Amino acid sequence: MASQVDLNADVGESYGQWRLGDDEAMLRVVTSANVACGFHAGDPLTLRRTCAAAVVAGVEIGAQVSYRDLVGFGRRFLDASADELAADVTYQIGALDGVSGGRVTYVKPHGALYNTVVHHEAQAEAVVAAVVAYHRPLAVLGLPGSRLLALAEQAGLQVVREAFADRGYTAAGTLVPRSEPGAVLHDPDEVADRAVRLVIGGEVVAVTGEVIAVEADSVCIHGDTPGAVAIASAVRAALLAAGVEIRGFMGQDR
Amino acid sequence: MASQVDLNADVGESYGQWRLGDDEAMLRVVTSANVACGFHAGDPLTLRRTCAAAVVAGVEIGAQVSYRDLVGFGRRFLDASADELAADVTYQIGALDGVSGGRVTYVKPHGALYNTVVHHEAQAEAVVAAVVAYHRPLAVLGLPGSRLLALAEQAGLQVVREAFADRGYTAAGTLVPRSEPGAVLHDPDEVADRAVRLVIGGEVVAVTGEVIAVEADSVCIHGDTPGAVAIASAVRAALLAAGVEIRGFMGQDR
Amino acid sequence: MASQVDLNADVGESYGQWRLGDDEAMLRVVTSANVACGFHAGDPLTLRRTCAAAVVAGVEIGAQVSYRDLVGFGRRFLDASADELAADVTYQIGALDGVSGGRVTYVKPHGALYNTVVHHEAQAEAVVAAVVAYHRPLAVLGLPGSRLLALAEQAGLQVVREAFADRGYTAAGTLVPRSEPGAVLHDPDEVADRAVRLVIGGEVVAVTGEVIAVEADSVCIHGDTPGAVAIASAVRAALLAAGVEIRGFMGQDR
Amino acid sequence: MASQVDLNADVGESYGQWRLGDDEAMLRVVTSANVACGFHAGDPLTLRRTCAAAVVAGVEIGAQVSYRDLVGFGRRFLDASADELAADVTYQIGALDGVSGGRVTYVKPHGALYNTVVHHEAQAEAVVAAVVAYHRPLAVLGLPGSRLLALAEQAGLQVVREAFADRGYTAAGTLVPRSEPGAVLHDPDEVADRAVRLVIGGEVVAVTGEVIAVEADSVCIHGDTPGAVAIASAVRAALLAAGVEIRGFMGQDR
Repeated sequence: MASQVDLNADVGESYGQWRLGDDEAMLRVVTSANVACGFHAGDPLTLRRTCAAAVVAGVEIGAQVSYRDLVGFGRRFLDASADELAADVTYQIGALDGVSGGRVTYVKPHGALYNTVVHHEAQAEAVVAAVVAYHRPLAVLGLPGSRLLALAEQAGLQVVREAFADRGYTAAGTLVPRSEPGAVLHDPDEVADRAVRLVIGGEVVAVTGEVIAVEADSVCIHGDTPGAVAIASAVRAALLAAGVEIRGFMGQDR
Repeated sequence: MASQVDLNADVGESYGQWRLGDDEAMLRVVTSANVACGFHAGDPLTLRRTCAAAVVAGVEIGAQVSYRDLVGFGRRFLDASADELAADVTYQIGALDGVSGGRVTYVKPHGALYNTVVHHEAQAEAVVAAVVAYHRPLAVLGLPGSRLLALAEQAGLQVVREAFADRGYTAAGTLVPRSEPGAVLHDPDEVADRAVRLVIGGEVVAVTGEVIAVEADSVCIHGDTPGAVAIASAVRAALLAAGVEIRGFMGQDR
Repeated sequence: MASQVDLNADVGESYGQWRLGDDEAMLRVVTSANVACGFHAGDPLTLRRTCAAAVVAGVEIGAQVSYRDLVGFGRRFLDASADELAADVTYQIGALDGVSGGRVTYVKPHGALYNTVVHHEAQAEAVVAAVVAYHRPLAVLGLPGSRLLALAEQAGLQVVREAFADRGYTAAGTLVPRSEPGAVLHDPDEVADRAVRLVIGGEVVAVTGEVIAVEADSVCIHGDTPGAVAIASAVRAALLAAGVEIRGFMGQDR
Repeated sequence: MASQVDLNADVGESYGQWRLGDDEAMLRVVTSANVACGFHAGDPLTLRRTCAAAVVAGVEIGAQVSYRDLVGFGRRFLDASADELAADVTYQIGALDGVSGGRVTYVKPHGALYNTVVHHEAQAEAVVAAVVAYHRPLAVLGLPGSRLLALAEQAGLQVVREAFADRGYTAAGTLVPRSEPGAVLHDPDEVADRAVRLVIGGEVVAVTGEVIAVEADSVCIHGDTPGAVAIASAVRAALLAAGVEIRGFMGQDR
């Protein structure tokens, strides 16, 4: 199927004295970096340095927008109104755009917001409205089949569909919730094999055994788990070995 | 002396449920609006609405950058490192630029940061570095004679010098600290008279009686005091009556 | 029916530079003060002063606990886990107890948390667990029929049921949501009449016309609306005129 | 000299998703735990769990109070007024007391506040006033010769003097600033030797070679550096081997 694919990962999620993830290593593996924006993680100095490192590495910079919930790391649903959420998202995009020197090219919701805009019409509309309102065109990265991507497409935005090589899928094609068994895969070889099948074959095996079709422009690699860099490197190596070109969705090579 | 002058005031300083100042009224009086950026005041929705109102009113939008101190309203010195402060300032400029639709044209430090960069070399340098690093040229508004404006000028930035019609001056040309008598003037007529003398004559009477020379491109009007709008309107009317053109430093008329 | 009743109101909801409500006036009217705890409103200095004023006024001090959501004023549902919420509630009770000199005697959830614990089992349990875990016995103030009060009663806590004289009721005895017509009443005389009927008759007229039974130990008066003090004073005067003793649920007179 | 000494260390400094230090290991070594209070570190759930672990370990719980500066980890001077600071400190003590089940027995300022109250009269007074105002007696742990301990003693509070085995001292007996060479020692054997000499001999060798007298009731062990637990264990073992009883200043043995 696809002879090329984008790799994306979350970075910039340290905060002040607290460190999270090995951003430098991840920036050597991916083509697109979802950089935190300060609402769930990422102080301004961390963000500025992370963006500078992404520029040096030739990696695309995305605004990883979130609910305003530092202590919950953006992983808890917050019943924000559409107006509040749209303003919060625009504020975050702008802030990251500032510290990146105007180099943000896409937006990816984080954590609970990511999951919510799969189905929550008002919040999905708010995120799309925020991106549309931005004074420069930006792409939207999210889950295929989500309300977010449907509305973004309707609004004429560039849409990037992502798949997960290290997450379990249900037979319906959604992600197995983190609270259930099989939600997260930890074995680098298994994850790498799934990544190749995802990209080359356009399919993934669900936890219940069915083979499901998954179309993806980008493969997401988690950066905040132990062994994250090892998994990411394994995925990258396996894709290259299978003849897949790892190429940013904006066109940049790695 | 000057036949034209800019008028600036602080706006966007509400936060969530809490209201502060009458932004709509102030936007009808001034030519430049110093909009809060979320660190000392101003939630994203308030900021977006304030910027939209400023655009409708034809008022220039400035990023009123601050220490990160919501509970202290940015009025307490914070010993941030130059790197931290520069990143904080860039983050704030970008965030406001985002919610304003890319319409921020200048930067004005707020509160304790304003007072600190009059003399604190490292923090003044940090603010200038943040403005220089921004991916669009921005002017800097501040106190004549401050390290901030000296360094901004050296860096080739457009510099806007401001004077205060409603603040007491010492014989040395600095502002009387708020903790001392004569620091703030409340009588609209007196403030209006001082504004005219400032703009036409380039001078102000110090609390100790001396007449001092003050060169200003902009007159600052406070918006968060009782009677703020009355004072602002009196200043504006008196200046117009004296034949002064009220004109934004970026060129826009009112 | 009841010949005595408690009156409660929210106070301490200013934050730093921002003022909200006329706490001094409300403390002259009520017998129980729901003091914010810093998560939705209330900086420590405001809280310390508010508690000191409550002590002088002979008013009982309650911890008005909330989601951690300053910008949303605690009015937005947050999907916190039971463990997180219980720790958050205990932290808030302790903080207010500290600034009050150990004088907190009851707990009342605020805003979205108040509405959520009417029906949300896990969050209601978390609030009760937090109160039970506190190292001094505390009462719980809430809505009659709520899961919160049922669980608090089961846990052996003192329970205080409250009614609203200025809020519309549905035929089912729940409050009309704020987004619907008839949710909030603004006429002091009407609210005062309803308060008397509530306390003396144990009943209230629903928005749809039915008379419903409402048993209440305390009547809540809102303090953050325009005219709040006038309404509160009217309620108090009408109750006294009707022969009702206004007496704190802990026993203190006014 | 002393045949017994208290060992104290900072714990509870994780925040939400971010981990810092190995609290479990440190609680097996020390007799007094300086637990963060949420202003520079420590979310309520972390604090509750840390306090519960300290109780199980038989370790005394102290409130490690700080400026409100999460992103700066409390390491930056903040020019808070005495009233603001006193209320902030009481709020933090109360909050930790709440989540600990009323088991806080002492107070130790953190970071920049620790350094400031060595010499800053108004802020030292504010911290002492906050402790005095607390509704239960609490000890104060700090630097010998500091204004904090002098004022605490004058106010009749129990005072605990601490020394640092892993920090360089100047000839004047103050700590070498972290920005200078020799500020922090990393070799476990060297630190252990210094601890023994501190406790048995009451003296320490300054960076300039002089031997200075240092009287200490407690030795502070840092917990947030790499190798912290190894250093702490070495100190403990060396003291025990030298015949020193490691005993909490409140009397508890280990």
